Amino acid sequence: MVRTAENTTHSKPDTRYLIEFQPSGKTSHLRQGSLLQIANAAEVPIDAPCGGRETCGKCRIIVRLGADCLSKLKDSEMRFLSDTEIQAGYRLSCCASATSSGRVVLEVPSESQLGLQRLIVGGLEPGVIVSPSVHKFCMKVPIPSLEDLRADTERILETAKEQLSIRLDSIVFSALKALPLALRKDIWKVTVVENNGEVIAVEPGDSTSRFYGLAVDIGTTKLAAYLVDLNTGRSIATSSRVNPQTKHGSDVITRICYAMQEPSQLHELHRILIVAINAMSSEICRKTGLSVDDIYDVVVVGNTAMHHLFFDIQPESIGLSPYTAVAGGPLNVRSNDLGLHVNAGSYVHSPPNIAGFVGADTVADILATNIHQAEELTLLIDIGTNVEIVMGNRTGLQACSTPAGPALEGAEITFGMRAVEGAIESIWIDPKDMSVGYRTIGKDSLPKGICGSGIIDGISEMLKAGIIQASGEFKTDPAIPKLRSRSGITEFIIVERKLSAIDRDIAITQRDIRQIQLAKAAVYTAVLLSTRRLGVKPIDIKKVYVAGAFGTYINSQSARNIGMYPDIPLDRFRYVGNAAGARALLKSSTLRATARTIAQTIKYFPLGNEPDFQIQFLDALYIPHKDLELFPSVKRVLKLG
Amino acid sequence: MVRTAENTTHSKPDTRYLIEFQPSGKTSHLRQGSLLQIANAAEVPIDAPCGGRETCGKCRIIVRLGADCLSKLKDSEMRFLSDTEIQAGYRLSCCASATSSGRVVLEVPSESQLGLQRLIVGGLEPGVIVSPSVHKFCMKVPIPSLEDLRADTERILETAKEQLSIRLDSIVFSALKALPLALRKDIWKVTVVENNGEVIAVEPGDSTSRFYGLAVDIGTTKLAAYLVDLNTGRSIATSSRVNPQTKHGSDVITRICYAMQEPSQLHELHRILIVAINAMSSEICRKTGLSVDDIYDVVVVGNTAMHHLFFDIQPESIGLSPYTAVAGGPLNVRSNDLGLHVNAGSYVHSPPNIAGFVGADTVADILATNIHQAEELTLLIDIGTNVEIVMGNRTGLQACSTPAGPALEGAEITFGMRAVEGAIESIWIDPKDMSVGYRTIGKDSLPKGICGSGIIDGISEMLKAGIIQASGEFKTDPAIPKLRSRSGITEFIIVERKLSAIDRDIAITQRDIRQIQLAKAAVYTAVLLSTRRLGVKPIDIKKVYVAGAFGTYINSQSARNIGMYPDIPLDRFRYVGNAAGARALLKSSTLRATARTIAQTIKYFPLGNEPDFQIQFLDALYIPHKDLELFPSVKRVLKLG
Repeated sequence: MVRTAENTTHSKPDTRYLIEFQPSGKTSHLRQGSLLQIANAAEVPIDAPCGGRETCGKCRIIVRLGADCLSKLKDSEMRFLSDTEIQAGYRLSCCASATSSGRVVLEVPSESQLGLQRLIVGGLEPGVIVSPSVHKFCMKVPIPSLEDLRADTERILETAKEQLSIRLDSIVFSALKALPLALRKDIWKVTVVENNGEVIAVEPGDSTSRFYGLAVDIGTTKLAAYLVDLNTGRSIATSSRVNPQTKHGSDVITRICYAMQEPSQLHELHRILIVAINAMSSEICRKTGLSVDDIYDVVVVGNTAMHHLFFDIQPESIGLSPYTAVAGGPLNVRSNDLGLHVNAGSYVHSPPNIAGFVGADTVADILATNIHQAEELTLLIDIGTNVEIVMGNRTGLQACSTPAGPALEGAEITFGMRAVEGAIESIWIDPKDMSVGYRTIGKDSLPKGICGSGIIDGISEMLKAGIIQASGEFKTDPAIPKLRSRSGITEFIIVERKLSAIDRDIAITQRDIRQIQLAKAAVYTAVLLSTRRLGVKPIDIKKVYVAGAFGTYINSQSARNIGMYPDIPLDRFRYVGNAAGARALLKSSTLRATARTIAQTIKYFPLGNEPDFQIQFLDALYIPHKDLELFPSVKRVLKLG
Repeated sequence: MVRTAENTTHSKPDTRYLIEFQPSGKTSHLRQGSLLQIANAAEVPIDAPCGGRETCGKCRIIVRLGADCLSKLKDSEMRFLSDTEIQAGYRLSCCASATSSGRVVLEVPSESQLGLQRLIVGGLEPGVIVSPSVHKFCMKVPIPSLEDLRADTERILETAKEQLSIRLDSIVFSALKALPLALRKDIWKVTVVENNGEVIAVEPGDSTSRFYGLAVDIGTTKLAAYLVDLNTGRSIATSSRVNPQTKHGSDVITRICYAMQEPSQLHELHRILIVAINAMSSEICRKTGLSVDDIYDVVVVGNTAMHHLFFDIQPESIGLSPYTAVAGGPLNVRSNDLGLHVNAGSYVHSPPNIAGFVGADTVADILATNIHQAEELTLLIDIGTNVEIVMGNRTGLQACSTPAGPALEGAEITFGMRAVEGAIESIWIDPKDMSVGYRTIGKDSLPKGICGSGIIDGISEMLKAGIIQASGEFKTDPAIPKLRSRSGITEFIIVERKLSAIDRDIAITQRDIRQIQLAKAAVYTAVLLSTRRLGVKPIDIKKVYVAGAFGTYINSQSARNIGMYPDIPLDRFRYVGNAAGARALLKSSTLRATARTIAQTIKYFPLGNEPDFQIQFLDALYIPHKDLELFPSVKRVLKLG
């Protein structure tokens, strides 16, 4: 719910005016109103937390064609955009309008796309050729006679070779048991599902049209499952839910401790995860009218701890120095052994883990972003309680990880909450009058608290408005309204009690800022030390992929302002689609070998072992950084230093 | 219990006299008494049903050295031995004695060895090099450090390669789950069990001394399990019991019908078999003080129907024309999938089936006898309700099968019974006075009935004594005592009521003879048509291997006399040890590939398809045969024709 009035002036269509929005391809012939208003009318969602009041600077667009047809740059735009950005065609959509007829092409950069849309529109999925690990084919098998006394097994293996040149070596036990009936039910016409030379299912008649795989993303907090049509490669249904393990701890370490205490507790964490995944696959099958037997392949990705808990493997070593994984390489485990309700002959595949805190999910993200084939220096950053950093290009990749603590996910924050309905997800402060605007998740929800993206926005805006100093401390200027001290705790009020759903003022406290400083310093230090190991500087990073649902919701400008992201142009940022890597692994068998090679060749380095890690971390605690030369555009735009 | 008094005269030792018995290697210095008595005193068990009264002709020995030191041939010996046999050194041990000092070497041929002993002494077990499919080795794994952050899986796979040059590709799921604890329990000293590149078990410390495999022989009637030490290749314990499926039918066809009716009935037959095998492995482990977890490999052999029921595979097609198997090739199924209580990571191996009625047990028998490498023409014959015949040598093998009916196993016979305590297993008739001798199973048991080997003996002896004709009909000579007709049924009394345990006369009836004629004609026809396909004659068969517990107990002379076995010298007969092939497959991984090649190259032919099968079968109904020229030695010894 946006607490600022939105100007909904409707202008008239005029075909001489043509505004095209990318990447959606939607067009408009409206000539009046701001580009933001025209975009809204054309149902192009642009993130404009202040509602077009020119105070938040977030509704950025890039003019790709027809700059001449638009109004001149306003002062507000100069305030929020760097020179480089202005040169690159950046505008604030609330400030710009069409002043003369012609064709204008506008790109809505990923940082300006609304959160929910990012997942769908901005979510990367590599253009893989559909060539799954499993194959399904139908054939007519010769009927036994006194002249042809072959056993059913030889009959089917040899027919596949003779008729289809498909080499089959063996038959999985469940398929073997189904074989005699399947062959005889439809006069020896039979459909065979093959995986790596092994027959994993045999069905009577021709059932080749029903051929699906399940991609499962096991987040510490959230689970997501995607049903992929293995004939076409298309994702056709999805389901998600909260990871039920959260009741035994919200973070990875708490769950590892829980699993360590008793083998039965490990099995319990495993079991409730399987139950939840089964519920998702049932839901998907209900929605699509399919049977779980139509799912012949499963790819699961998660961080190393989630991976181990999914497979019922004791994760203790991940939690103890030197933090090693039990299972490193890729796994192929029979779904039956895990109790997964999919086709009985199917296998569950997981790509390899890189280290105790750089898991199969990171490998999947590398595949989804193709950074192992990138020409340019690329950064992949997956933000959660734990942050994984991959940096490099086709000549080599390196990886490290750092605990960021739960602050970024809204925990340990005074009014912190998860990114659910009622959470303030975006904050802006008008530097002129220090008035605060915000937006909550859920259209008509009164605010209940602040989630991670909101708190990052809040700190960025407080820095910009001069409410806090580079050290993170509140200024002691008594003229700042809403800044107060209660019981020795200084805090800045975001929502007053009368407008909150919790009958209390919602504020950001000094302690909250400290928590975020610790988290953002961890992230930045990991990025900085990664560049240092490669002998480059942060500005040399030509592309940044932000993975994980949480990263997707963070405003990258705010994250850059507070010094969490390195100071590089915002158009270099991209978002990785949820479970995109897992879906790619379902669709392409060659990617599985690629994943293995990536995990074997990537250079993992323990961040804490870097010589001056502590010093670098302390410098990064400043907002944006002790060394402002590392953040030149932030310095300029925010008029710092 | 032998119903004839045994002469137990004890002679005095005299070191100038040396008698050696082969293959046991036992020796004696006794100079007085018959060789049979000397053998008894030396604890060399020779089958002498008549107790040394020179009336049964069964206590045959072969003089290999020192014939000059022995007494001259007696008339009784001339009566029971053919010229060829006499030339080959055959004697009756009850008739011969040492007459002068010196060294005498006597071979106790397999047909004269006592039944129980045959299994141990005569049971063939090919001299395979111990090189199992599974390997167990101990290693010291480097401890993780900040400089060595490999996952447990890579750590163990790479250590095996570096330290021991053992290539491991993957880890079975149950072993993966055990891995972290096993590595850390004994300071990173760990024992790994490998099967075909896959780690199937990981144990803390050095447990290489505990390394076992289980060979299971699934007979239609009887189950047997052998524990084999995979370090030494030695069989160290055994257990056997009745196949619990017998309650759902004593023969294969009845059980197939039971399984066909309802899937639940198939699963029941499967389940009760697994329960029985688990009971045997538990019993073996109890006896040896081992754990079922010490069993890392299982080889199962059985006929095709038993094979399918063991694996829970619908055997319907085996019972319906054209009688094909579902599973042809070798199977490797995880023991967990079958519910077998052995090490969780172990696989159950079955060699391939050749056809619906020539199963994996036949392949195992071929391996045990090495006939695929034989120079000479060799016959393998496995006698049961179904009879399997393999013939050939290293240049090629052919196989066929024939139903013999249950008569040979004592069923459908008036006083028939299984070969258990109280069964008459051996019969002899003194041609002079037609007095009947017999021996029962169980030392002090009164007879309850006649088992298969007894009935074959009885018919042979009745033929020899002239009680029955070549047609199988009783002679109508009123002078034959114990031959009588009651309610139109002619029968010959073997045991009179007062000496029987069942308070009735035990007799062989005309109908019993007919049943045996049908069975023995089936066997002989299969052998004869096998030779014909190879363009040879029965006498060209240079070696005969008799497999299966039942065949082991049949007196081969009697079986030859009635025309079930071809008329070839008895020293060409050998017995195949129980489950010898299964044990060999445990001990040698290369034999598994050999088994596959054998099954792929052996020529199976459906016997019923042979042009004049019916005519040949009718001729073979005669005792020994319509064409006596096929049985020259029987004709001569029994003075027939």
